[in-house]
Amino acid sequence: MNFCSHCGQPVRFAIPEGDDRPRYMCDACGTIHYQNPRIIAGTLPISGSRILLCRRAIAPRKGYWTLPAGFMENAETTLEAAARETREEACAEVALHGLYTLINLPHIDQVYMIFLADLDGGFDAGPESLEVALFEESEIPWDELAFPTIERTLRHFYDDRREGSYPLHVSDITPEDRERYFGSA
Amino acid sequence: MNFCSHCGQPVRFAIPEGDDRPRYMCDACGTIHYQNPRIIAGTLPISGSRILLCRRAIAPRKGYWTLPAGFMENAETTLEAAARETREEACAEVALHGLYTLINLPHIDQVYMIFLADLDGGFDAGPESLEVALFEESEIPWDELAFPTIERTLRHFYDDRREGSYPLHVSDITPEDRERYFGSA
Repeated sequence: MNFCSHCGQPVRFAIPEGDDRPRYMCDACGTIHYQNPRIIAGTLPISGSRILLCRRAIAPRKGYWTLPAGFMENAETTLEAAARETREEACAEVALHGLYTLINLPHIDQVYMIFLADLDGGFDAGPESLEVALFEESEIPWDELAFPTIERTLRHFYDDRREGSYPLHVSDITPEDRERYFGSA
Repeated sequence: MNFCSHCGQPVRFAIPEGDDRPRYMCDACGTIHYQNPRIIAGTLPISGSRILLCRRAIAPRKGYWTLPAGFMENAETTLEAAARETREEACAEVALHGLYTLINLPHIDQVYMIFLADLDGGFDAGPESLEVALFEESEIPWDELAFPTIERTLRHFYDDRREGSYPLHVSDITPEDRERYFGSA
């Protein structure tokens, strides 16, 4: 951020009076520009013994497999965001169940929220997917998954399926977890 | 938003090519300024049969009672945000348990996440609180609560305490829910 989005004058990065961390501040009009984490909402679509994955057609991690998920938009709920992303990336309708994984990625200011869902009807590759397919557990392309959040959600799912119970899992992804996918920066 | 925070030129509000909703766009440098919902993280601190509430010293809803909660910051986890807000507003340390309410407020682009917590030691009014106190169920100031998210979380809590089980509750706040607190706009 270089300029104030309200008045167009240059901003500076400093700790506002009464605050305890630096913000982008505009001395011209007094606006303080707060920045906050973003939510990535998605689903784990289930069809009998198989689950649905999408192969990414866009960066980052083009060509790798993911669950349908993306940035939550203003004016929608977390469940609406998860269903919309599933519709956009997999051309699929789903019946949403509970929140299943809540994963913090503090080093990149993101919070993942993946909901368990039942696939309701067909599917197809949306514009952001190269292909969409159903996988048995033995077929999961573990070495070709797009993100550590996806691997962690799938590992919880298969562990829980053996137990027959699907509680919410809250956890964090560390920079080291991401290095395996993206290399060290 | 009037000006591009990257290059300082005026922005326009229109649907970018390949997108399906309007964004603030800069024709000068090509930046698209996405806007996303914000997370409000907090706790329901428990001390024996009582729970902790804070009376707000700041707008909105100054003078009304709330659970300690506030905007999640970049570079922290949802649990860290909930604990930090509890420390700031109630000068209290807590042992966090599970996520308890996840409440969508799509009309104001917010997502509330309240964690159950055990109060660990003392408490005091932080700079954003007029007072902080422990309440038995019969003492809750139902007509003086700050936000519908707080009322809903407390009602779930007392219902669940009678059942002895505290599952995650996911729900939405509607504009009508908010009218009772803020009046119609």
